[in-house]
Amino acid sequence: MQQVDCVFCGIAGGGGAAYVLYEDADHMAFLDRYPLVPGHTLIIPRQHYSTINEMSPDSVGRLFSLVPRLAPAVLGATGAGAFNVGQNNGHAAKQVVPHVHVHIIPRREGDRINWTARSVVDSSEFDEMAGRIRALL
Amino acid sequence: MQQVDCVFCGIAGGGGAAYVLYEDADHMAFLDRYPLVPGHTLIIPRQHYSTINEMSPDSVGRLFSLVPRLAPAVLGATGAGAFNVGQNNGHAAKQVVPHVHVHIIPRREGDRINWTARSVVDSSEFDEMAGRIRALL
Repeated sequence: MQQVDCVFCGIAGGGGAAYVLYEDADHMAFLDRYPLVPGHTLIIPRQHYSTINEMSPDSVGRLFSLVPRLAPAVLGATGAGAFNVGQNNGHAAKQVVPHVHVHIIPRREGDRINWTARSVVDSSEFDEMAGRIRALL
Repeated sequence: MQQVDCVFCGIAGGGGAAYVLYEDADHMAFLDRYPLVPGHTLIIPRQHYSTINEMSPDSVGRLFSLVPRLAPAVLGATGAGAFNVGQNNGHAAKQVVPHVHVHIIPRREGDRINWTARSVVDSSEFDEMAGRIRALL
């Protein structure tokens, strides 16, 4: 089920623009539109769920099993040596888009991420980063 | 394979003290010894892996599939309505114990977590919290 007012359902349905890195029948991965750092990647189920407590354990497992599929390419493309996996459930947990998404955030020593300041990146930078990641998948 | 100098291998092998919430043949869940908030829970594979890039996709999936098994009990026991899932890979990503672990961090509106200040909690509080969570599993 897609929700008409959900930006990630829009991307999953093919109507929403995104820098897509990976897709299969049930999932998509694309660059975060307001990245904390270059290469900040999201993985979503195509199906709309607000939080992972709405998903079956098997569906949650298949979603997160894509992290080791994607993360090495994100690290390779960015030159980062470490990464955070994050997934927020509910407004108090700072979930912004209420469609389940898993963050992969590449990290470098001393990068001093500002977790409340997201970047606006121009489309040529996104194109270049998405191309570099896709080439490593 | 267990590593002799790894605190989480110690817990997985039964020799290390922990407030255990859940265990199966391949995984354990227990309270974080230095919680960001009351009820801060960790899930680990018993097998030692430094980062999830060392794990098979299936093993990663089975590990994270335990989040929706544990999180409702953590929320019920703490009264929190939201939660973060986090999993850090590498020193630059602020991974402290180099044995893969998934954080479940219960969140409340306006809780203003200080991500760099961990709490020291006395054993009676841990006992009480662990009992409340186990009762809901």
